[in-house]
Amino acid sequence: MLITNEIIGNFLQTRQATEEICAPLTQEDYVVQPTVDVSPPKWHLGHTTWFFEEFVLKKFVEDYEEFDPQFSFLFNSYYESMGKRVLRTNRGNLTRPSVEEVYRYRDHVTNHVSEFLDDNLNEEIAKLITIGINHEQQHQELLFTDIKYILGNNPIFPHFSETFEENLIEKQKNKWIKIPEGTYEIGHATTDFCFDNELGKHKVFLHKYKISNKLVTNEEYLEFINDGGYSNFIYWHAEGWDWVQQNEIKCPLYWHKIDKEWHQYTFKGLKPLDMEAPVTHVSYYEAFAYAEWKGLKLPTEFEWEVAQDYFDWGKRWEWTESAYTPYPFYKKEPGALGEYNGKFMVNQKVLRGASVVTAKDHSRYTYRNFFHPHLRWQFTGIRLAKR
Amino acid sequence: MLITNEIIGNFLQTRQATEEICAPLTQEDYVVQPTVDVSPPKWHLGHTTWFFEEFVLKKFVEDYEEFDPQFSFLFNSYYESMGKRVLRTNRGNLTRPSVEEVYRYRDHVTNHVSEFLDDNLNEEIAKLITIGINHEQQHQELLFTDIKYILGNNPIFPHFSETFEENLIEKQKNKWIKIPEGTYEIGHATTDFCFDNELGKHKVFLHKYKISNKLVTNEEYLEFINDGGYSNFIYWHAEGWDWVQQNEIKCPLYWHKIDKEWHQYTFKGLKPLDMEAPVTHVSYYEAFAYAEWKGLKLPTEFEWEVAQDYFDWGKRWEWTESAYTPYPFYKKEPGALGEYNGKFMVNQKVLRGASVVTAKDHSRYTYRNFFHPHLRWQFTGIRLAKR
Amino acid sequence: MLITNEIIGNFLQTRQATEEICAPLTQEDYVVQPTVDVSPPKWHLGHTTWFFEEFVLKKFVEDYEEFDPQFSFLFNSYYESMGKRVLRTNRGNLTRPSVEEVYRYRDHVTNHVSEFLDDNLNEEIAKLITIGINHEQQHQELLFTDIKYILGNNPIFPHFSETFEENLIEKQKNKWIKIPEGTYEIGHATTDFCFDNELGKHKVFLHKYKISNKLVTNEEYLEFINDGGYSNFIYWHAEGWDWVQQNEIKCPLYWHKIDKEWHQYTFKGLKPLDMEAPVTHVSYYEAFAYAEWKGLKLPTEFEWEVAQDYFDWGKRWEWTESAYTPYPFYKKEPGALGEYNGKFMVNQKVLRGASVVTAKDHSRYTYRNFFHPHLRWQFTGIRLAKR
Amino acid sequence: MLITNEIIGNFLQTRQATEEICAPLTQEDYVVQPTVDVSPPKWHLGHTTWFFEEFVLKKFVEDYEEFDPQFSFLFNSYYESMGKRVLRTNRGNLTRPSVEEVYRYRDHVTNHVSEFLDDNLNEEIAKLITIGINHEQQHQELLFTDIKYILGNNPIFPHFSETFEENLIEKQKNKWIKIPEGTYEIGHATTDFCFDNELGKHKVFLHKYKISNKLVTNEEYLEFINDGGYSNFIYWHAEGWDWVQQNEIKCPLYWHKIDKEWHQYTFKGLKPLDMEAPVTHVSYYEAFAYAEWKGLKLPTEFEWEVAQDYFDWGKRWEWTESAYTPYPFYKKEPGALGEYNGKFMVNQKVLRGASVVTAKDHSRYTYRNFFHPHLRWQFTGIRLAKR
Repeated sequence: MLITNEIIGNFLQTRQATEEICAPLTQEDYVVQPTVDVSPPKWHLGHTTWFFEEFVLKKFVEDYEEFDPQFSFLFNSYYESMGKRVLRTNRGNLTRPSVEEVYRYRDHVTNHVSEFLDDNLNEEIAKLITIGINHEQQHQELLFTDIKYILGNNPIFPHFSETFEENLIEKQKNKWIKIPEGTYEIGHATTDFCFDNELGKHKVFLHKYKISNKLVTNEEYLEFINDGGYSNFIYWHAEGWDWVQQNEIKCPLYWHKIDKEWHQYTFKGLKPLDMEAPVTHVSYYEAFAYAEWKGLKLPTEFEWEVAQDYFDWGKRWEWTESAYTPYPFYKKEPGALGEYNGKFMVNQKVLRGASVVTAKDHSRYTYRNFFHPHLRWQFTGIRLAKR
Repeated sequence: MLITNEIIGNFLQTRQATEEICAPLTQEDYVVQPTVDVSPPKWHLGHTTWFFEEFVLKKFVEDYEEFDPQFSFLFNSYYESMGKRVLRTNRGNLTRPSVEEVYRYRDHVTNHVSEFLDDNLNEEIAKLITIGINHEQQHQELLFTDIKYILGNNPIFPHFSETFEENLIEKQKNKWIKIPEGTYEIGHATTDFCFDNELGKHKVFLHKYKISNKLVTNEEYLEFINDGGYSNFIYWHAEGWDWVQQNEIKCPLYWHKIDKEWHQYTFKGLKPLDMEAPVTHVSYYEAFAYAEWKGLKLPTEFEWEVAQDYFDWGKRWEWTESAYTPYPFYKKEPGALGEYNGKFMVNQKVLRGASVVTAKDHSRYTYRNFFHPHLRWQFTGIRLAKR
Repeated sequence: MLITNEIIGNFLQTRQATEEICAPLTQEDYVVQPTVDVSPPKWHLGHTTWFFEEFVLKKFVEDYEEFDPQFSFLFNSYYESMGKRVLRTNRGNLTRPSVEEVYRYRDHVTNHVSEFLDDNLNEEIAKLITIGINHEQQHQELLFTDIKYILGNNPIFPHFSETFEENLIEKQKNKWIKIPEGTYEIGHATTDFCFDNELGKHKVFLHKYKISNKLVTNEEYLEFINDGGYSNFIYWHAEGWDWVQQNEIKCPLYWHKIDKEWHQYTFKGLKPLDMEAPVTHVSYYEAFAYAEWKGLKLPTEFEWEVAQDYFDWGKRWEWTESAYTPYPFYKKEPGALGEYNGKFMVNQKVLRGASVVTAKDHSRYTYRNFFHPHLRWQFTGIRLAKR
Repeated sequence: MLITNEIIGNFLQTRQATEEICAPLTQEDYVVQPTVDVSPPKWHLGHTTWFFEEFVLKKFVEDYEEFDPQFSFLFNSYYESMGKRVLRTNRGNLTRPSVEEVYRYRDHVTNHVSEFLDDNLNEEIAKLITIGINHEQQHQELLFTDIKYILGNNPIFPHFSETFEENLIEKQKNKWIKIPEGTYEIGHATTDFCFDNELGKHKVFLHKYKISNKLVTNEEYLEFINDGGYSNFIYWHAEGWDWVQQNEIKCPLYWHKIDKEWHQYTFKGLKPLDMEAPVTHVSYYEAFAYAEWKGLKLPTEFEWEVAQDYFDWGKRWEWTESAYTPYPFYKKEPGALGEYNGKFMVNQKVLRGASVVTAKDHSRYTYRNFFHPHLRWQFTGIRLAKR
């Protein structure tokens, strides 16, 4: 049956892709957690495996023997309904199980799932596997960004890859795409996979607006810095201004001024700032302040979704003005999978698009990514809008 | 001229009303700040006065002599553009100037403004005075809630007033008001005073929904508690659940279980819980969890505004599902007054309605109040909705 | 009987002296607690009264009726054995009972104790009253230092007293008093009152040393500042250096450089720095760093006690190099009074002498005062020693 | 020349011993820092090497080329005079340089020092090398205790060594060794190596006392626990009691009650508590509280030193009542080595003796070890004394 092979193929390819991302790492790189939002690569490898063991093998495979009963405790993330878990802040202290053992755990689970799928694929299982694949793809992106944080905060700035180009140049001039007033449909409507937060196609009314065809570049952002943007409260939210002052923020994450010249840490190591590349690793606070300084604004997630057909996207996650709240017909999944999205719907901002490190086949124009407004370790950029 | 007298009358009445609120206080009650969100009553008296001195007298009255040049530093709140200010956390340490001196400051400014208005009232001045009145009315509400916090956290539970009845009984049975799908107009449209965050009348599309005609009562909320609502993560946002656990929250603020009987601290002192009164002093996290437990939801601010004509409101501020973000046509006021609203438009939730301690003439159905989701010292309640 | 009258006289005089210290305060000054080590004056008034009510009236007066049963909770300090108490950090939030009520509480207890003593004085009672007097004298000193902190951290620098002279000039030139090697007796040996930490006369061996006849003056300390003493780690303990950097310490507490001129806040308000006065309000860390910079050292408490006959003391508490640990024959008092001293014998430094705000009749050369090494709100100074 | 060979031999043997301690580690174990007082094993390997590179090779070897110029920044610990350093709290985030590279660094420096010594050994160099050896021996002990912490706080309790026996049984019955009153000599007096804090032989007077011939055992300590020792404030310092309550301390570090049976984590994994072994991993607060409960006391460091000839020691570091302050003739070494001891002489307690993981040839009866009173990750035990 075609569907079987395709699912199994996707599954195996996803499992392999995760491991390929980690190929350049040393054994030591797998272990640490330099800040609370970052997880050790070893943990990502284990957690994505735990997902399949917990929700597929332990549920559907008779007499399945866990690889190691302690792992269900070690690699649970935030699923309260699945029992105890290692506190997020302690993940970076676990030197055991070893990297090698975690890879054996991966093989064990990958093989058992693969065998199981050969004979037992049905719609319910296919749905679970698809969720597991998408879950693992999200962690692939986190692997990239967490590895960048681990290496990029090491004072000797190690290289990760000599070939990975994260700065996709943004050459086009700014044009304003005009969207007329009207009632538009929002949300996921096909039968393809999506997360529960995108579901419930519904209508929103939008007044006419204009949205830029391009992302803000490093060169443009530098003007904001040079104009004193980080030292004038007038452009900032009150909480953004506090954040700037308490953390002495003066530029995007990974920027360093060395001998009067701006540099940025990239997967290829420390490089002179690429003026034509889109600015990245900015917080929502910075994105908002930049827009204020320009006398413009950030689009809402609806303005973004309605206009997305008219511009290229995918180089950077794009901060929107929208808070992450439920769609009108939002319904939480029952059980543990219901903890995936709904419980985060407060105090976060929606990002739309995708980034250079988003897994292939893991982006769509209805995708709702979300982060707290001060976070910068993702590849986050700025698109402007106006009335 | 009629307008003159009316404005001057409103101004004088507002100034007097503020002082009447404070009449039952002892001199000591004016000074302290038991938590960062609460300000000492003395500070409210000074700050509302500073507003008129700073924005009216010092700007428009030639040769005006400040009552005391140090007060512009002491009683500035968060207006970055108006110079240095006492850090919010230190307000409760200022024993001088004395209460008596602050009242003299009030008289000085009230009299000078009043004299000035007699001869100089024009549209610009009228607008400023109106803002000042509305500003002071907001602080009247804060005076009530801050005084309640100061007295209600004293282990001897002092009475504030023998007559002030804060529990307005909610006797009606629940009925679901049905609102049909459609495009609705939102926002302030008359020439009456409003804050800048309400401005820019605009359209929103709403799918059909139902909204309750009444607030959730203490009796109903108690069922949630008795059903273990505070110990089951399933009803809570992840951040709400952290908040519950870190602060060991088990009931609304001011509730105390004494000899197996629930009591609540009120302006009249500690009283048995009034089962028919609307539940109050709940955080957004609690309001949301309650709605989840009921299988219902909180209305958005737009659902609230569109339906408000069909129910009574004003007994309690009502948490909505909406995050506090700018309306499509929002434009920040220029200058220091621009710091009034816009800079708080992140990480806060909108509340609609008004409470028992909102100043008369200070409520309207377009009013957008906002607080962080964990705060409870305001009179905050719950209205439910569903599709 | 003579002893009766003397004790009663001392008791009444002590009670009155406490109230005289507070005479210049406004009602608001009595309430606040600007930092954890400071207590509100109202609390000192209540706590010293609670001591007599708890340990004398409630123990020995049949049918004694407490002034208010809640006060035993409100005004307990750290006596774990006496039941629950208000957390130290919350003392500054208690606006009730009012200042006036606390004074009535004082009168009530003073009168009852006084009456009781008329007929019931015996040795046990006399001992308790004497402890209570000494306890209250300690709080008299704290009243002065806490009031100074409350007023001195108010940005408008209010005056406390036009006559209280805290800077007793140190005019004499430095001379080194030479003490020969030998075995010396240390500790309290008479039958006069002392605290348990001074008891157990015992011997210590001292190698020969020299100790200064005078305290370090502001002028001398200024040289240390001008020589970069606060920015060179070499003079500091590691913890002292952290303290300097985290708190951006650049001079003693209450010093302010205004228009290039050093000032100090005193009970008389902000005054130009008095160059001939002994430096005060320095931490142990600063005292030690100053000595290091001079190539000298601080005396141990034994070196101080043995030499004290040869110099004047009493203008400032003097930091010693000694840690606060028990004497060889130290025995904790049984019961609640045993919590007075012993439980603080870790992580604190001994200070010897007395200060300008120590109660008369409350100083003796065996007195062991103690504070954490970073504290500065007491009148603390520096005497140097060398081998 | 004999002295050369001996020094070189000691040097090479010390370098090798350090590496042998680490032999059972996985590569991942080398990297993490689960609490601020623990350093990653990789860091210890690098820092002990840095010491020789910085103070020997870079100072005395002409044209010496550093292994890597960045390492002098990475592996400096707290020597302020040697330039910038990685903050202690960030050591556990450095995945690079790799373990393998650090071992190459070790080889590089070991070889260069060894070659250098062949031709250049003189008294100054010998002294430096001896300090370096003793410094590395201290880190050998820290390697053991830090590794124990890293593995012992992993929820799967990995074994470190099947053979290392840390519990040396204490079989003898308690006897009281009586020491008569007198003046005794204290401190290091031979020409053998010692640290500067032991120097300056001097006299102390001791009143007669008794000291136990043995350490307190687990069995004896358990009686304290079973008698409610951890829940009765009366035995504790005020700061100790706060520490117990804030950290919910109920037993020594590494103890776990599993199915009503006490276990302790050891290098061999989780084992039933050995009742005859001396209690270990207790804080000074616990040692003091235990002594209070017994109606006894801890010896001072002088009482310990004078009596040490009469009992066996070396199984555990022994908390004393003495605070870590300078000896009368203490003189800080000039230069960076002066930062070794003196700057820590505040807020710490002296421990005497040695532990099962102290390097051979690294213990002597004048040795002054010191830690903050709350720390427990060292092998710390209790010896009792009385008058």
